[in-house]
Amino acid sequence: MGGDMITLAHGGGGIASRRLLREHLLPRLDSEALRPLGDSALVDVPPGGIALTTDSYVVRPWRFPGGDIGRLAVCGTVNDLAVMGARPLYLTLGLILEEGLPLADLDAVIASVAETAREAGVEVVAGDTKVVNRGDADGLYINTSGIGVFDDAHVRLPGPRAGDRLLVTGALGDHGLAVMAAREGLPLKSALVSDCAPLNGLVEAMRGAGEITWMRDCTRGGLASAANELAADHGLGVRFIEEDLVVHDAAAAVAELLGLDILHVANEGVILAAVAEGDAGRVLGAARAHAYGREASLAGGLTKSHPRRVVLETVIGGERIVDMLTGEQLPRIC
Amino acid sequence: MGGDMITLAHGGGGIASRRLLREHLLPRLDSEALRPLGDSALVDVPPGGIALTTDSYVVRPWRFPGGDIGRLAVCGTVNDLAVMGARPLYLTLGLILEEGLPLADLDAVIASVAETAREAGVEVVAGDTKVVNRGDADGLYINTSGIGVFDDAHVRLPGPRAGDRLLVTGALGDHGLAVMAAREGLPLKSALVSDCAPLNGLVEAMRGAGEITWMRDCTRGGLASAANELAADHGLGVRFIEEDLVVHDAAAAVAELLGLDILHVANEGVILAAVAEGDAGRVLGAARAHAYGREASLAGGLTKSHPRRVVLETVIGGERIVDMLTGEQLPRIC
Repeated sequence: MGGDMITLAHGGGGIASRRLLREHLLPRLDSEALRPLGDSALVDVPPGGIALTTDSYVVRPWRFPGGDIGRLAVCGTVNDLAVMGARPLYLTLGLILEEGLPLADLDAVIASVAETAREAGVEVVAGDTKVVNRGDADGLYINTSGIGVFDDAHVRLPGPRAGDRLLVTGALGDHGLAVMAAREGLPLKSALVSDCAPLNGLVEAMRGAGEITWMRDCTRGGLASAANELAADHGLGVRFIEEDLVVHDAAAAVAELLGLDILHVANEGVILAAVAEGDAGRVLGAARAHAYGREASLAGGLTKSHPRRVVLETVIGGERIVDMLTGEQLPRIC
Repeated sequence: MGGDMITLAHGGGGIASRRLLREHLLPRLDSEALRPLGDSALVDVPPGGIALTTDSYVVRPWRFPGGDIGRLAVCGTVNDLAVMGARPLYLTLGLILEEGLPLADLDAVIASVAETAREAGVEVVAGDTKVVNRGDADGLYINTSGIGVFDDAHVRLPGPRAGDRLLVTGALGDHGLAVMAAREGLPLKSALVSDCAPLNGLVEAMRGAGEITWMRDCTRGGLASAANELAADHGLGVRFIEEDLVVHDAAAAVAELLGLDILHVANEGVILAAVAEGDAGRVLGAARAHAYGREASLAGGLTKSHPRRVVLETVIGGERIVDMLTGEQLPRIC
């Protein structure tokens, strides 16, 4: 029968595919644009250009403390748009399902996609489902592509400048370490929970309080990679003050256990933002007033004095160069 | 070393990821929008709304007679936009790579993506690469999402009407059967080659010659599924004349060998179009003058007399109901 799990027929484009859509996907993802089930969705966008992004998600385990692959897929794409200064509006959802995946698992993931999309105020307008043979995937993979638009409250960012302060919106490393701990079955005394969250609301609140010149979300490669990209792409020096970076005790303990530099560990709810110097206090206040920015801090700034380098002023008063992640560190954390 | 194959580090978001991008992806996919490597691409679109589509590609083998997974991914997404009446403009490219994939294979697929995108006149503006562990995928999977726009030559389609003629732009079943024959190692006397092609140019030529009211590309589930969706979604009856449908001898032979109904087999270069009755001859002429429409035919029409049903008038003078594909038929053909 296979009635309670995914079969190859669900990817065949025939009756089983239509039924999967009508019974398992559309009821949860209800959307005007999705309902006609055409080859494309037709949507309106205001003038002024669009931001466009794509990400595939292959995280293992697909359910982890603080979220699952569905929430992650929506958050990751929403956040990629928000850090470009755009207002996230529409998502597409591409599912690659392994034959034998329990339908209950698919239902749970889609419910999570739907709930997170509602929270972020975005709409899933187009989708696709493929099924691969047993053993040719690992449960399910998700691609979300997203469209963001620009309007009066969402103008393009001017780019970072020497003198800007650096704001980090949350504690570092929780996502990567929570997934890793779940995968390795590490016994944890304290809670370690992914920070996975849609940050477009937080970004709006911060932008309403002052000028943000540049943003990036600190996903794969962590804060170190985001900062190194900022330094390299704009020829600026990045300075962080170690004691102003927030790290939860549980994350610090697991990072130490695994021999990882917390600055390289992926986050899914942390943005690095460059803020105009005179606005930094107000933007920090706005961030801390938001549910996803309560642990925000001003943790450094941009300088002309060591272009293309990221330097950390350590707690003990020294300085060290923060490099980009070389090699693999935590595979399959998003 | 792993220097000549994909490693988990290529998906880590650090230096190896950047190098893969700079050395293997960007040189082939060169695009103004892609080069900044931000979290999203910024692109302009004219007013009038956009068409948005997504598809994942999991075809096995990934290289087949007439194409590969890269060409397929671009064509499938371009065609989904073209049949909605839009002008395909921008693509995103999401790669899921299996650890151990030879870099030469990735290079070949990306070259194919780039060449097909150039042919179709679309630009890859955003991308993402994930790497999964050996055994957790099957070489590589690709997601392409696409944006199409509307302009004077690309207005939205009015919808099908009773009395419209049905135009089929090519021979049936070549793609699905070519992939299946390659996978099963069937010994073929004659060439069986996928019809995989970007059809936006063909669609433009046809629309320039007369009014097209509805289109769909006949991919998974074949002509039968496209026709049944037309019948069900618009409450019309679809009639096909069997002798006016084009099927190559090699395809007919393999379909018979495998016990398949050619009407259910996937195409990647065939569109079913409803055409205003008075324009049908001119639209057919325009289709046949195009490289990808040389075997186009007028093969039926739309009627009020048997709403929601697809009927085939057979060569021997009978009639049969053409159903949608039930169960699986040819897995992993796109």
